[in-house]
Amino acid sequence: MSKLEINPGVSPYPMPVVLVGADVHKKPNFMAVAWFNKMNGRPPVWAVSIGKKQYTLIGIRENRTFSINFPSTKHMQVTDYCGIYSGRDVDKSSLFNVFYGKVGTAPMINEATLTIELEVVDIMESLEVCDIVLGEVKAAYTEEEYQSNGILDPRKLDPFVLTQPDNHYWSIGEIVGNAFKDGKNYST
Amino acid sequence: MSKLEINPGVSPYPMPVVLVGADVHKKPNFMAVAWFNKMNGRPPVWAVSIGKKQYTLIGIRENRTFSINFPSTKHMQVTDYCGIYSGRDVDKSSLFNVFYGKVGTAPMINEATLTIELEVVDIMESLEVCDIVLGEVKAAYTEEEYQSNGILDPRKLDPFVLTQPDNHYWSIGEIVGNAFKDGKNYST
Repeated sequence: MSKLEINPGVSPYPMPVVLVGADVHKKPNFMAVAWFNKMNGRPPVWAVSIGKKQYTLIGIRENRTFSINFPSTKHMQVTDYCGIYSGRDVDKSSLFNVFYGKVGTAPMINEATLTIELEVVDIMESLEVCDIVLGEVKAAYTEEEYQSNGILDPRKLDPFVLTQPDNHYWSIGEIVGNAFKDGKNYST
Repeated sequence: MSKLEINPGVSPYPMPVVLVGADVHKKPNFMAVAWFNKMNGRPPVWAVSIGKKQYTLIGIRENRTFSINFPSTKHMQVTDYCGIYSGRDVDKSSLFNVFYGKVGTAPMINEATLTIELEVVDIMESLEVCDIVLGEVKAAYTEEEYQSNGILDPRKLDPFVLTQPDNHYWSIGEIVGNAFKDGKNYST
């Protein structure tokens, strides 16, 4: 075996990049996040990891709501901007056209291909650097142009992912398989 | 605004696909998982969502350890197989060459490009369908061939991601940006 032991802090898998939105002191703020994923199917509950000192967390605690907004590759630069600069130092409220949905206090980005509004289910505070915010999805919004045959089309959504430690953003490539199907033909 | 409200159960962003390994009743078992991500930097803690009835969860509770193994696109079919069939019904212990590391009871896949062994920090049982397993990374292993200039190279790792509801696996595409850098040149 030619295995090398490496830094256990790696996260070199493709992590989807989103903008988490929250009203902080009644003003919309957005931060770039790559540490999140779905955690439960029905009801849909997502987990988002946010640094304990992040400005966004103040708003999530104030309103118990937040949004997750999916940028496409053409929004890469503004998304990265929202990851570098804190809402404490720069006003991000006018970077995007903002709209609100049924939960009322979760600012969503009109320019995003897909936006999700969530209500906080729980905030786990036991980790050292980050809090884990669990949110139940209350509604999801997209536009006709991002769908094909009535469902969301990843090629049209054109998302990007982050890999580390190389710190690159990547587009998605080609279809390499059919999930829950191709494995049926695997011969052991 | 031309927003459409859609099914809140969507998860159409690129989710990295991994094989979670655990010894269940002293035999290695692996399941495909796409609902996971890093949740804390130092120490590195990852969250993995696993259905409460999954066979793998028995082993994770038995040993308080598990592994996360990263397949490349050439392992797509066997990975999908591990997502379709339960360890209750099929023996997955001989699908791969298995090795163990410092935690001793977390079976890792020799053929994987990157393998991580973790110790359970907490298991959150409050969601309806899935439990959230929080694990601290104790070690990570790769091979020389997956690195460039001393760091992991996403192109060489050649991972794949899942999108839903279209249920496709995708390779990664092209570099579209530099994280924590390109945003500095964004003019608001």
